[in-house]
Amino acid sequence: MDRVDALGLQAALAHARKSYAEGGVPIGAALVYHGDAQNPEPRVLGQGHNERVQSASAILHGETAALQDAGRLKAEVYRNSTMFTTLSPCSMCSGAVMLYKIPRLVIGESVNFKGDEDLLRSRGVEVIVLDDADCKELMRKFIAEKPEEWYEDIGEFPPPPSSGNE
Amino acid sequence: MDRVDALGLQAALAHARKSYAEGGVPIGAALVYHGDAQNPEPRVLGQGHNERVQSASAILHGETAALQDAGRLKAEVYRNSTMFTTLSPCSMCSGAVMLYKIPRLVIGESVNFKGDEDLLRSRGVEVIVLDDADCKELMRKFIAEKPEEWYEDIGEFPPPPSSGNE
Ligand SMILES: [Ca+2]
Ligand SMILES: [Ca+2]
Ligand SMILES: [Zn+2]
Ligand SMILES: [Zn+2]
Repeated sequence: MDRVDALGLQAALAHARKSYAEGGVPIGAALVYHGDAQNPEPRVLGQGHNERVQSASAILHGETAALQDAGRLKAEVYRNSTMFTTLSPCSMCSGAVMLYKIPRLVIGESVNFKGDEDLLRSRGVEVIVLDDADCKELMRKFIAEKPEEWYEDIGEFPPPPSSGNE
Repeated sequence: MDRVDALGLQAALAHARKSYAEGGVPIGAALVYHGDAQNPEPRVLGQGHNERVQSASAILHGETAALQDAGRLKAEVYRNSTMFTTLSPCSMCSGAVMLYKIPRLVIGESVNFKGDEDLLRSRGVEVIVLDDADCKELMRKFIAEKPEEWYEDIGEFPPPPSSGNE
């Protein structure tokens, strides 16, 4: 794993864990600039986590929180950056990557949720899925503990609670 | 135009005009609930405008600002609502409509920018384009006055300034 990926995955996972510790949806993300001739060091431009529980937000997912944190950037900055997210992106966050023509997306895992990865690829985004064990376990645990919050976050109805009386 | 559409377009255009008056990108949006058996009156759940200039935000477009303003909602509320926007939605905002399975999208105009309307239709969203003269004129004026802000908002490079010396 190169320096960009080490930086990005570490930041995204740290934010996912912070969100879990706060009782929130444990999805984190980071936008990492690849560096340029003047300053070749990669650097985190923005990072954050899902804010549904913490800020009652319907639009602050990991990826959008990272973009918000990065602030106003010119087109060329996004085009020399990678977005990292601990979980496969929903259609809003996939659309945000497409809006800003971020050329590369690194996904921690696609097992607990699989977003529009094929659409992203068809639009020219390089999509890399790591199948990371820590990302998978954190999300699996949260969905088991708080299904209502999770299904609300993806605009779905929670499955009916299973009952021993049936 | 029925009551839902009158409410929604009026709110979206009012927010677009407010944003223009503040020096911001003049795109407004509103999420309108269709009403139900208990309360058949349609009502605005959330409304807002692009906040790039006002809040230095890369993710608060009209539609996402309206979703943010509406707060946390259950899946069934979105599925009985219409999103109104003064300008054809970018891929992020199109993705937000798809995420929450909002079944109907009313667009003021698609002349100054045309988003992913075909993708939305292919995913089952009813998309209505009004070609509204007020929406068109407000946006045309802004793009002519502040091309840098506009192209930044859609992740594009501004066209080179024309020069009388060439
Ligand atoms: Ca920051
Ligand atoms: Ca409100
Ligand atoms: Zn998302
Ligand atoms: Zn948008």
